[in-house]
Amino acid sequence: MDVKAAVAFEANQPLKLETVQLDPPQAGEVLVEIKATGVCHTDAYTLSGKDPEGLFPSILGHEGAGVVAEVGKGVKSLKPGDHVIPLYTPECRECKFCLSQKTNLCQAIRSTQGKGVMPDGTSRFSLNGERLHHFMGTSTFANYTVLPEIALAKIREDAPFDKVCYIGCGVTTGIGAVLFTAKVEAGANVVVFGLGGIGLNVIQGAKMVGADKIIGVDINPQKRPLAEQFGMTDFVNPHEIKGDIVNYLVELTDGGADYSFECIGNINVMRQALECCHKGWGVCTIIGVAGAGEEISTRPVQLVTGRVWKGSAFGGARGRTDVPKIVDWYMDGKINIDPLITHTLPIDQINDAFNLMHEGSSIRTVLTY
Amino acid sequence: MDVKAAVAFEANQPLKLETVQLDPPQAGEVLVEIKATGVCHTDAYTLSGKDPEGLFPSILGHEGAGVVAEVGKGVKSLKPGDHVIPLYTPECRECKFCLSQKTNLCQAIRSTQGKGVMPDGTSRFSLNGERLHHFMGTSTFANYTVLPEIALAKIREDAPFDKVCYIGCGVTTGIGAVLFTAKVEAGANVVVFGLGGIGLNVIQGAKMVGADKIIGVDINPQKRPLAEQFGMTDFVNPHEIKGDIVNYLVELTDGGADYSFECIGNINVMRQALECCHKGWGVCTIIGVAGAGEEISTRPVQLVTGRVWKGSAFGGARGRTDVPKIVDWYMDGKINIDPLITHTLPIDQINDAFNLMHEGSSIRTVLTY
Repeated sequence: MDVKAAVAFEANQPLKLETVQLDPPQAGEVLVEIKATGVCHTDAYTLSGKDPEGLFPSILGHEGAGVVAEVGKGVKSLKPGDHVIPLYTPECRECKFCLSQKTNLCQAIRSTQGKGVMPDGTSRFSLNGERLHHFMGTSTFANYTVLPEIALAKIREDAPFDKVCYIGCGVTTGIGAVLFTAKVEAGANVVVFGLGGIGLNVIQGAKMVGADKIIGVDINPQKRPLAEQFGMTDFVNPHEIKGDIVNYLVELTDGGADYSFECIGNINVMRQALECCHKGWGVCTIIGVAGAGEEISTRPVQLVTGRVWKGSAFGGARGRTDVPKIVDWYMDGKINIDPLITHTLPIDQINDAFNLMHEGSSIRTVLTY
Repeated sequence: MDVKAAVAFEANQPLKLETVQLDPPQAGEVLVEIKATGVCHTDAYTLSGKDPEGLFPSILGHEGAGVVAEVGKGVKSLKPGDHVIPLYTPECRECKFCLSQKTNLCQAIRSTQGKGVMPDGTSRFSLNGERLHHFMGTSTFANYTVLPEIALAKIREDAPFDKVCYIGCGVTTGIGAVLFTAKVEAGANVVVFGLGGIGLNVIQGAKMVGADKIIGVDINPQKRPLAEQFGMTDFVNPHEIKGDIVNYLVELTDGGADYSFECIGNINVMRQALECCHKGWGVCTIIGVAGAGEEISTRPVQLVTGRVWKGSAFGGARGRTDVPKIVDWYMDGKINIDPLITHTLPIDQINDAFNLMHEGSSIRTVLTY
């Protein structure tokens, strides 16, 4: 079938809106009509050409929401009309990783997903006979896309696509890191480094589970009002304090953070995030993605005296199990998404969405079809 | 009273047996007759002069067992005749750390302990009017010593002093790291780096909780037989394998270690111990003590993809609560200590005990009074 897609033909060039061809879903696959999609830093990272695993030409996009249009052979958990969120981290419930009950990093389709193809090794997208790569197994920058059944979370039908699409990546990454990776408990003191979209979602996750102090750290004071709206209790601008940021935070938290989160991708901040943790039990969770080849360091006594260094991908959330819950929490008013979606544009303005992100004038832009 | 003690007068000199004076226990303190004491690397480290916090003259020793001789005012949990193990990590059950239920690192007497004095700021030991420093709050290289009540674990009376003294440090550090810090579960695959006394205790801890593969890594093949006796299922000599040790261990464990332990104090091995862990959930616990100022490094993606880097001090054991249990496990035959105590000497031969350790010809030497 013909579908409308924003195609990334080569690195560091604007996307081009094209009518491309989409093959029907094969066994275990599902055709989804995408209704809305967010534009995320990861899309921009791959488009920039810096992603060593980036493939072109491809259809980017991994933060969508839509409706099942057709199911392939053997698909049992979904039917046409179901509302869904595509999952770049699938949940097969059968692989060693899923069955471990210790991680969300399902590896069932990892190798083909990384190669830009479906699990059978082929692409469903083409343009004038030339194959286009899938991206992150989702390719939500097309008004129809095909995904494996295990890469779709079924959600309630009254949830607005142009809001809950954000749960497909940013919201879950932030809130999930608090709930599923760090497992923050009521009364804890939390320090959040970086008050972009992820940091704000960490803050609202911490607020939701009843944290006491929720300290936001950012060098941009303009981040303060929205962070406070989301639950931040204290704002720290490293440029405005005297002395060492780690000592400052240890004092502010009366001994150190019970939990800290790095939401920037800066290796120096990752070290600060560990070392501002409380002796004996403080847990530092790294969410940000560092530059290729960069390394983190610390003195091992930081760990021997009880601090824990860990990380989180997709918030530690099991997509099919946890994403529908997070949609419920949004619909029930337990979490907020609307103020984070600063711009909503038609898909035709997708390159404007990237520009807004690069300028820093959006938190999240959502594109609608 | 006059007591017999091995005094460390200055760094890097043999200890001298002296008759020193010991003041009676003050309020909250307990006089203990030490019956046996191990000699540990930490004693040697401080004696060497490399410990930046080392104090002289002092009475070293922190791995003892003995009998309560007298209690000071207000002491309620102990009475003369009780058998005890001194604790360099006390358990007050009242400080923020104890009450957190997340750590064993009681800080109740931390500051005075570090200064070589009792909690009231003074020393109980003197020689010809000159004060001698306490060491680690224990000073077990004396046939009588004074400790705070909160730094004594009461143990059963049928446990042999010359064996269970080792539970005061080495045994608990190794077994505890498995049980209390890493919380290894039955069926797990475990990799242990370094097959000295700590590594062997990690191995028997892993065996006790039902680990599957227990892989020992050491460059000395002579460590193999005893490690196998303690439960090691696979021995890996990094000098004898082809290629990278991390890849080798990941293959041997079918994806990586569920739990790894660094029992050497080598920062390069600490990195290997993290990176040989299983994606998604592998936990690396650092037990070894690195050189002053040395740092550990890794790429943050190791953490973001689910590995956890943590550390353990005194095995994460709460001294008064857990040490008596470990004594029971020894008496019940659930763990073994006897083969690890390779030498037993009278206190007068204490310098020989240090020499045996430096030569590498002992695992543990116990001194008796």
